[in-house]
Amino acid sequence: MSDNKTATRTVFFISDHSGVTAETMGHSLLSQFEGIAFRAVTLPFISTMDKAAEALQRINATALADGTAPIIFSTLVRDAERQLVKGANGLFLDFFDAFLAPLEAELGQKSSHALGRAHGMIDLAGYMTRIDATNFALANDDGGQGREYERADVVLLGVSRSGKTPTCLYLALQYGIYAANYPLMEEDLEGGELPAAVRPYARKLFGLTIEPARLQQIREVRRPESRYASAQQVHYELRAAERMYSRFGVPHIDTTHCSVEEISSRILQLTGIPRRLRP
Amino acid sequence: MSDNKTATRTVFFISDHSGVTAETMGHSLLSQFEGIAFRAVTLPFISTMDKAAEALQRINATALADGTAPIIFSTLVRDAERQLVKGANGLFLDFFDAFLAPLEAELGQKSSHALGRAHGMIDLAGYMTRIDATNFALANDDGGQGREYERADVVLLGVSRSGKTPTCLYLALQYGIYAANYPLMEEDLEGGELPAAVRPYARKLFGLTIEPARLQQIREVRRPESRYASAQQVHYELRAAERMYSRFGVPHIDTTHCSVEEISSRILQLTGIPRRLRP
Repeated sequence: MSDNKTATRTVFFISDHSGVTAETMGHSLLSQFEGIAFRAVTLPFISTMDKAAEALQRINATALADGTAPIIFSTLVRDAERQLVKGANGLFLDFFDAFLAPLEAELGQKSSHALGRAHGMIDLAGYMTRIDATNFALANDDGGQGREYERADVVLLGVSRSGKTPTCLYLALQYGIYAANYPLMEEDLEGGELPAAVRPYARKLFGLTIEPARLQQIREVRRPESRYASAQQVHYELRAAERMYSRFGVPHIDTTHCSVEEISSRILQLTGIPRRLRP
Repeated sequence: MSDNKTATRTVFFISDHSGVTAETMGHSLLSQFEGIAFRAVTLPFISTMDKAAEALQRINATALADGTAPIIFSTLVRDAERQLVKGANGLFLDFFDAFLAPLEAELGQKSSHALGRAHGMIDLAGYMTRIDATNFALANDDGGQGREYERADVVLLGVSRSGKTPTCLYLALQYGIYAANYPLMEEDLEGGELPAAVRPYARKLFGLTIEPARLQQIREVRRPESRYASAQQVHYELRAAERMYSRFGVPHIDTTHCSVEEISSRILQLTGIPRRLRP
């Protein structure tokens, strides 16, 4: 539509719901294009024709102002709203458009095109599982008072700042998994034995490790120029932790190049813990 | 492919990464088909031709055993692996297949088809923001010791079990937002004034409410047959909280029919707080 293919592009994420799926989908795709600057705008909860008409206007106004066609990632489940926004002056990529027809053919059934069902409408049981798992992660964080290791699906081990807390919370929120964590402190590492508190749960243990340079960076932000953040201390702790994992056959992964999602997913894959929730 | 279109269908989510995007996409689509039972299998980290060949074998073996074609939701970013798995005996729906070509045309650029980039590979700054926001949510949960309300992007108010904690954690993990929460206790509700601890931060307050019947159910699970879970108590607390929100102009939403993702997304939309992280 325009000659100016390298200027900043506006990208719309439009959904009848929160827009998280459209955002995830869009960012995955756009990350495959280098050297183009994107400006992201999320238009969530577009669940009526009025709101769809407003969204259409906004997209068209942006196209005019930018002088380039916006890119529109859509998860609009209802036909009427989708058809309306599809008329916008931009590249319209809709997820249901692309995949519902082949699925209908394969399953021999028309889809319900029902609002809300596609995303977050959740039953009480699923809600309670998620909340309960989150509370469990909170109560059993950092060797916390809870110490309900018998209820845990997994108990993460790792030195300070190796990624235990966000991973436990993500496992709870995303999968409903009961994840506790236990920090490997100097006294644990010196002995070289599994810490007494977690020894009875050896089968549930999973270790995290991280590259020394990265851990130093992270600790340096937290406590600049401390012994805690020193190269020597970081090397010592990580070597001792890794030796412990090897000695007691604790499965473990390096979190240096992993997002929280990826660490969580690898833990599930390596342990075979069944998830209690599906997206 | 088969006559037996209503039997349980096996669904594969296959990805060179964690598979979360493929799962989200697949579940959104499958929820549009009622009365069909699906068995979900995630095949994450399919990043080499060997692993792709294994996955292909597994899918084909399942097709034989089931007597129906599996459905395959894929986010395989590299052509070679994708082309291989595409040959499986099943309905292959790939996200990059569907959308990369139109994007390449519109952007006038070939995509990089690069592994890892599409998903969670994160920079240190983004990682630190997420961790820091998560620690903030933990330290400032439930009126916790932190009380760093001056650093907060938002301070959630609500009675016990209205959804504050998981929402704060989700805001931190997903968006890098600094969310504190303050529980409205009986002494706060009786006075009818904004609690002294949060009064200086009135502009940052956001209220949660919930339908009494739902709150009763949730509290009943936690403390069966208690005063805490009684109809009378729940009605009293919710009425008093909603009166407080109205009186002091605190924006608020009803969380009864909302997932944590949706509550979080609505808060962003209603407050205009900028996110610190993109997916």
